[in-house]
Amino acid sequence: MADKKLRLIVDMDGVLADVYRQFIHFEFLETGTLIDLDTVDGVDEVVAFPNGMKHVNERGFFRSAPVIPHSQTVLEELSEIYDVFIVSAAMQFPNSLEEKYYWLKEYFPFLSWKQMVLCGSKEVVQGDVMIDDHFKNLDPFVGKTLLFDQPHNRKHHEHSHHRVHNWLEIRKILLEA
Amino acid sequence: MADKKLRLIVDMDGVLADVYRQFIHFEFLETGTLIDLDTVDGVDEVVAFPNGMKHVNERGFFRSAPVIPHSQTVLEELSEIYDVFIVSAAMQFPNSLEEKYYWLKEYFPFLSWKQMVLCGSKEVVQGDVMIDDHFKNLDPFVGKTLLFDQPHNRKHHEHSHHRVHNWLEIRKILLEA
Repeated sequence: MADKKLRLIVDMDGVLADVYRQFIHFEFLETGTLIDLDTVDGVDEVVAFPNGMKHVNERGFFRSAPVIPHSQTVLEELSEIYDVFIVSAAMQFPNSLEEKYYWLKEYFPFLSWKQMVLCGSKEVVQGDVMIDDHFKNLDPFVGKTLLFDQPHNRKHHEHSHHRVHNWLEIRKILLEA
Repeated sequence: MADKKLRLIVDMDGVLADVYRQFIHFEFLETGTLIDLDTVDGVDEVVAFPNGMKHVNERGFFRSAPVIPHSQTVLEELSEIYDVFIVSAAMQFPNSLEEKYYWLKEYFPFLSWKQMVLCGSKEVVQGDVMIDDHFKNLDPFVGKTLLFDQPHNRKHHEHSHHRVHNWLEIRKILLEA
């Protein structure tokens, strides 16, 4: 089993794609209100952004999301060592499905379509390591879990997942440990 | 654990959606050639249908596919007993992603988006029972496997999966056994 790679499950929104910046951008375009990230700690995105649910259902929301810093270079390095799968809970937003495919193809060209999973619930997915910003995905996962720090998951007194703040930290944990 | 349902993984193309009828229809529309199903036993779909790869990449191919007989009523019954997930290897055909979502929503309205998975490779999915028409999906699956009979999987001397020919047979095996 020496050459069997560990399977790494990586979330998209809030881990690869900066949906917070996108929410702020769409809210500002619609209402002129500039929401300060410091004010939304511990608040669910949809509550933090009054028009959030409308915006995620609009064409282009996911396709034009900015990439989270260092995710491209670190994930490319990780792909050498791990069997990487991008798993996104996207089925609630059917407009996002094709957008997510083309977004990954553009920004993570080293990944193939075989490594992409768009689902509803992540409970059906198995692997060795999961990086995600939602407790609902990490809690049922059997394997090592890394919680990607985002405003909505702060102020949550849960210590069963290792909190990481950026991709350089992930690099350290998964490549240098 | 008495009330923990077994997880049933169900394929779409060739199991719920009659893609053979769709291939024949699209080939006839394009070339006037009516391909006889009896002549394509044991042949991969893309080889059996000269323009198959072009047609699966066209808008509408998956959205307008006919439903395989009895799949709706039997799957609805199965949903009472099993934790059903529809898992389709769709990522190779990005045009199919949204079409598959709306197709399921139309013909299987008792399923929620939480039960849908669109992926590349199915190796990442775990469950107790899998119904699929492809050996590549059934072979690595840890659990009970049902091979849904289709022309492309005939003439294959493989007996590790139980071959079923229609949904009434599946009903017998999974509901009456």
